Amino acid sequence: MFKALLLILLSAIVVEQTSDQMNLTGMPAEISEIMQNQQNAWNSGDIEGFMIGYWDSEELLFIGNSVNNGYETTLSNYKKSYPTREDMGSLEFTNLIWVPVSSDAGLLIGEWNLIGINNGMYSLLWKKMEGEWLIIADHSSD
Amino acid sequence: MFKALLLILLSAIVVEQTSDQMNLTGMPAEISEIMQNQQNAWNSGDIEGFMIGYWDSEELLFIGNSVNNGYETTLSNYKKSYPTREDMGSLEFTNLIWVPVSSDAGLLIGEWNLIGINNGMYSLLWKKMEGEWLIIADHSSD
Repeated sequence: MFKALLLILLSAIVVEQTSDQMNLTGMPAEISEIMQNQQNAWNSGDIEGFMIGYWDSEELLFIGNSVNNGYETTLSNYKKSYPTREDMGSLEFTNLIWVPVSSDAGLLIGEWNLIGINNGMYSLLWKKMEGEWLIIADHSSD
Repeated sequence: MFKALLLILLSAIVVEQTSDQMNLTGMPAEISEIMQNQQNAWNSGDIEGFMIGYWDSEELLFIGNSVNNGYETTLSNYKKSYPTREDMGSLEFTNLIWVPVSSDAGLLIGEWNLIGINNGMYSLLWKKMEGEWLIIADHSSD
């Protein structure tokens, strides 16, 4: 009984801490929820689930060493770069700055950390389309 | 006389080629002009002149290995990274994609090339403020 209560309390603390790294003043709460879900999916080895934040369109842009067009190319590149669960490691997002651009768009700057493997910065252009916030351009660098 | 004419013709071709690397369909012409001026300033060893495209504000964001706030910090970092004319080399911008965000904002994706030294990608968030297009966030990676 006490053990169960302790576990519930600890879980609550973990959720609270994770949210602190996601939420930013002025940023729509939906975005931090989506990123939390993306992080959880990645850490379950689920790349398709991780893709939930991205616009499912040929026009999605991913800027890494070059610029790639499209959701399918982005998904395929993630699968190539992280072929095994071990390669995927444990991902942690830390959102740093929300730059509001218009009522339905903003740029989100933060740090990604594949713990013990690699880390870097991201800037994500989010747009609200048909009521849904989606990443339309992702620039990620290490 | 013929030599002079040839030089004028060659100059015109060079200007034309450079503009082709700057202009993008749907992107405000002011932006390609500003970037042309930035490139020219850099290639004259003039870092202050190069800064003309950036918002002169403490809120300017530069994302490299980390995120830096402010125009003065960005200028100071450029000066630290490129202390001599030789370090500055010869810069070439190639604009690739203009992502319109609102009537007064857009994301510009392209390649920077310090010829023979280093190269990489940029994504620049441009915003029109008081009639003037300015970079409010620059994510540059190599």
